[in-house]
Amino acid sequence: MNARPAESSVTLGEAAREAARRHHARLTKPVGSLGFLEELGGQLAAIAGQEPPPVPRRPTVVVAACDHGVVDEGVTPWPRSVTAQMVRNFLEGGAAINVLAREVGASVVVVDAGVEHPLPPHPSLLDLHVRRLTGNIAREPALTVDEAAALVAHGRAIVASLRANGIDLIATGDMGIGNTTPSSAVIAALTGRDPRAVTGRGTGIDDERLARKVATIEQALRRSGPPSDPLRVLAELGGGEIAVIAGLVLGALDQRIPVIVDGVISLAGTLVAASLNPATLGVVVAGHRSVEPGAGVVLETLGLRPLLDLDLRLGEGTGAALAVPLVRAAARLLHEMAEFDQAGVDTLDAGASARS
Amino acid sequence: MNARPAESSVTLGEAAREAARRHHARLTKPVGSLGFLEELGGQLAAIAGQEPPPVPRRPTVVVAACDHGVVDEGVTPWPRSVTAQMVRNFLEGGAAINVLAREVGASVVVVDAGVEHPLPPHPSLLDLHVRRLTGNIAREPALTVDEAAALVAHGRAIVASLRANGIDLIATGDMGIGNTTPSSAVIAALTGRDPRAVTGRGTGIDDERLARKVATIEQALRRSGPPSDPLRVLAELGGGEIAVIAGLVLGALDQRIPVIVDGVISLAGTLVAASLNPATLGVVVAGHRSVEPGAGVVLETLGLRPLLDLDLRLGEGTGAALAVPLVRAAARLLHEMAEFDQAGVDTLDAGASARS
Repeated sequence: MNARPAESSVTLGEAAREAARRHHARLTKPVGSLGFLEELGGQLAAIAGQEPPPVPRRPTVVVAACDHGVVDEGVTPWPRSVTAQMVRNFLEGGAAINVLAREVGASVVVVDAGVEHPLPPHPSLLDLHVRRLTGNIAREPALTVDEAAALVAHGRAIVASLRANGIDLIATGDMGIGNTTPSSAVIAALTGRDPRAVTGRGTGIDDERLARKVATIEQALRRSGPPSDPLRVLAELGGGEIAVIAGLVLGALDQRIPVIVDGVISLAGTLVAASLNPATLGVVVAGHRSVEPGAGVVLETLGLRPLLDLDLRLGEGTGAALAVPLVRAAARLLHEMAEFDQAGVDTLDAGASARS
Repeated sequence: MNARPAESSVTLGEAAREAARRHHARLTKPVGSLGFLEELGGQLAAIAGQEPPPVPRRPTVVVAACDHGVVDEGVTPWPRSVTAQMVRNFLEGGAAINVLAREVGASVVVVDAGVEHPLPPHPSLLDLHVRRLTGNIAREPALTVDEAAALVAHGRAIVASLRANGIDLIATGDMGIGNTTPSSAVIAALTGRDPRAVTGRGTGIDDERLARKVATIEQALRRSGPPSDPLRVLAELGGGEIAVIAGLVLGALDQRIPVIVDGVISLAGTLVAASLNPATLGVVVAGHRSVEPGAGVVLETLGLRPLLDLDLRLGEGTGAALAVPLVRAAARLLHEMAEFDQAGVDTLDAGASARS
């Protein structure tokens, strides 16, 4: 297997984006008055190379789950057993992501990307683990480069398979006790920011544990040496769910469908994907701004504007799922709104229009 | 008719809000990790006096439309004819608010609160006008106090009637060429802020027209004298749609249902309602932060946190409609999420829980 995924040769449809901009100017509203929804409509048109862009009808949330050796360093008060228990909760429909996916009309697919405790087979569970627990990044690599590459490839293949089954919008999610630690480590390595600037309280840890978490990330960065290839950074400091999410983003570009990314874990995966192939940013929609500082750093680094800012810090894809109606709305506006001349609505005279 | 609406004697259910907080702590997620959605769930419980709160199943957007004499001062480049034309567009389903309402599963009701050009009867159009054009606020009151009171009462009655027909969530919207001018005037009068701090570019006017708009509002404030009773401010400086929206907010409190308010025009109405009865704030959800500076001033003055911030400046209720899924989600989480003990998910030990 190629360690570095081949760059996608897909070119996004800038002509379709420009057509969406002109279309918006004909719709019965002041020019630009739908704000960021107009930009989002243009992005959707560019992704599909089609204007108006297709309205996403079958969104799915892909929740990648993994366990982390670094939990042994005491970076979280939660026991690792919770990862597998929460996967069962996802499969039974009782977690927050299930409720929010139902609300927005999305399905949920769970990926076992390295959960420590074996899970029973389930039609909504893809078992793609290449190992059952990552290495403790303070002392050893999380994954080998080959394992990381395999998980990224799995992520890409998941999107191809979902697309073949009619899925037209991906939202990314994660589950993994302790996984804000590797996410912050990956973000620190790929952005060059100080670990303190990208490390937060995760599920809500106290000052003492936060200091331990920062020290653990510093130790991991010292151990792994100067950042090099993004795939090597992912292997040294990341985790299974981060790798699969990076693959989902690359896969969305392959398939030319939008991918809504969630909080800090998904953004770590997005940063890996964008480091491997900057063209991925064309298909990425940032679902929300998490309270985790690393999330803000990635959004800023990649120039992504989040659709929501509700102080969420749960993960699972919750902040991505909540953004689905906004993405669908951006596409529908270009399909369903009347134009000035059709609707018999007076527009500005040319002079006034040019002034405003 | 009483000029000042009687204060509602409804007391919101603080016990239900507290029950929602305790309920959230038992759900399978870290405490507080759903951020503002948890507060919103508590608010919905308090509104209904019930925990879990009812899930809004039949939301409706009420779009109040009116024409404004102050357009004669040149505050907007759009002709007044557009108000009636856009009302027809609403009734035919081609406007942005129709698309967004469909996306979020809401119906649309249009209220003629003083449109200049007579409108044909339509089952979704309530003709509640008390006059067909407001006075030019630079030179005369927009409405008499009796007219303003009648329109507020109409707004309250609309909510009572909708509630009787099963509607359980109101979103407010507006249409009226020139109506950011009276909205900014009302906001300046009721907050004591300088007109320049609460006046924006509306549909996108240039610097010259913005200066004229500010000067017009200053003239209106001088003419109407020191602000007194909120109903008198509404009559002197407001408009039909602002009055109806104030009534919708008061009516939502009467009926103990949530009301999602839109941008600067809706917030001017909300400010009037809150000035008449501060208890209304208990039922108000701010849909979004409009780019209009007056909107930000009202949100800050009333302590409202907007759910969205997408640079919208269209009105019609668009920013309120887009927030409907978030409100519904906040209620559904309290109905549908599993609790730790039910789901067999380990929780923190008491010590760790107390620390985090």
